Amino acid sequence: MPRLVTAFSNPLIKRVRSLREKRHRRAEGLFIAEGLRILAEAEQAGRLPLYLFYTEAMRGHPLVVRLAAAAESAGGEAIETSLDILHKLSGKDNPQTVLGVYAEFATDLSRLDRSAAGLWLVAQALRDPGNLGTILRTGDAVGAGGLILIDDCVDPFSVEAVRASMGAVFTVPLAQARWPDFLAWLRAGPATLVALSLRTDTDYRAPAYPRPTFLLTGNEAQGLPADYEAACDLTVKLPMRGKADSLNAAVATAVMAYQVLAAHDGAAA
Amino acid sequence: MPRLVTAFSNPLIKRVRSLREKRHRRAEGLFIAEGLRILAEAEQAGRLPLYLFYTEAMRGHPLVVRLAAAAESAGGEAIETSLDILHKLSGKDNPQTVLGVYAEFATDLSRLDRSAAGLWLVAQALRDPGNLGTILRTGDAVGAGGLILIDDCVDPFSVEAVRASMGAVFTVPLAQARWPDFLAWLRAGPATLVALSLRTDTDYRAPAYPRPTFLLTGNEAQGLPADYEAACDLTVKLPMRGKADSLNAAVATAVMAYQVLAAHDGAAA
Repeated sequence: MPRLVTAFSNPLIKRVRSLREKRHRRAEGLFIAEGLRILAEAEQAGRLPLYLFYTEAMRGHPLVVRLAAAAESAGGEAIETSLDILHKLSGKDNPQTVLGVYAEFATDLSRLDRSAAGLWLVAQALRDPGNLGTILRTGDAVGAGGLILIDDCVDPFSVEAVRASMGAVFTVPLAQARWPDFLAWLRAGPATLVALSLRTDTDYRAPAYPRPTFLLTGNEAQGLPADYEAACDLTVKLPMRGKADSLNAAVATAVMAYQVLAAHDGAAA
Repeated sequence: MPRLVTAFSNPLIKRVRSLREKRHRRAEGLFIAEGLRILAEAEQAGRLPLYLFYTEAMRGHPLVVRLAAAAESAGGEAIETSLDILHKLSGKDNPQTVLGVYAEFATDLSRLDRSAAGLWLVAQALRDPGNLGTILRTGDAVGAGGLILIDDCVDPFSVEAVRASMGAVFTVPLAQARWPDFLAWLRAGPATLVALSLRTDTDYRAPAYPRPTFLLTGNEAQGLPADYEAACDLTVKLPMRGKADSLNAAVATAVMAYQVLAAHDGAAA
């Protein structure tokens, strides 16, 4: 039986709302995902919400019925509530009518199997949650083995990052590591580490990108530290025909990722 | 001589702050751009601020000195102010220390010369200002002739769109049109209209993309209306190896734009 919660002062509402802050997410090991589409992705990836919130209008929706039953039989809870409460929980002006609270995943490097994919994404000191989520979404599209976050990146479990990932946070393996630990892991097996650079003459379309290729993207404002770039096996450049010398970080990652995919498909043909 | 303004109640501060709302931008024909980098792009593109705001710490910065002199001799005004005021004007938690108020540009289709470039970007009913700005930034990078906004898109002069464009709002020609007017203009000359589609077997790497190619991107949630897609000369698909069936709109536009650039470069070689 779903519980009915409509009071802003309800302790669970306060607790879930606090998950919009990173320190509370870390303390609880929980994060928020919103919207039917993203919750359906989570279900397909075998992830059930610990708490499932939905509005009265969604009570009979097949996915809500299924998720509520599955969550409850796994020890979770289904909660019918108001759009106002969902607005308060998500912080969004036009909140989704369904919201789930999920357990965070372990994100240590040792969980990754580099032989599982020919392409991996790596991002360093990424600051914008929208960019992080968008890179996850691209990672899903190109069949990347996972996304490895280096140094102090924005939290991949933030509401904004999860939203921009369109569910890819549930389907693309995530890891977090400091640079020296990442490099040690990387060099313990086959890997070609690739980055965009302004200091190279190699066009991004030239290399064959040996499998597995790890695409390294730097911070939005600073780019990659010089010694990180020097540690790469390969640096390439994108044509820049305009006034600026850089692309949005998520855009640059996607253009590169699709080129690696094309190089791999060409080699396989 | 710069004016010193530090009171939140100053009428100019209230007026500039109101430019964060679209109706005030339209009524005044003005918009806000922030940050040294973006204001430098504007200057290089021949655009001077009508009002230039900067903090005391920036008083002696070469660009600020030059912009202030140029703005004043063109009838504009330089205003020294506080970081608190800049925070209020930009709505940003960590405001830039320099902010300019600019006249909006005319955005009618007739200003565009299709022979000026081999690649043009077109976006329909785009909702997210970050996506719009990011597409402008990509348009600059690929040397697109311009960005044409179809139907009800988010305002390209919004603070968020200008910010995401990283100055490309000043360097990439912009036009706005309803679909029938765009189509009439498009068909009055040479043009290949291209869109991504889930209902085609043509890989995005196959076509030669005759010049000028117009890349059409649809709304983030709905994609393109079926009749808009049917009006295209060419529909292509991107490999989608994951669970989802779409990419972020700005990401998809960029992957396509770089492929068109590669096809054109290959044909020219």
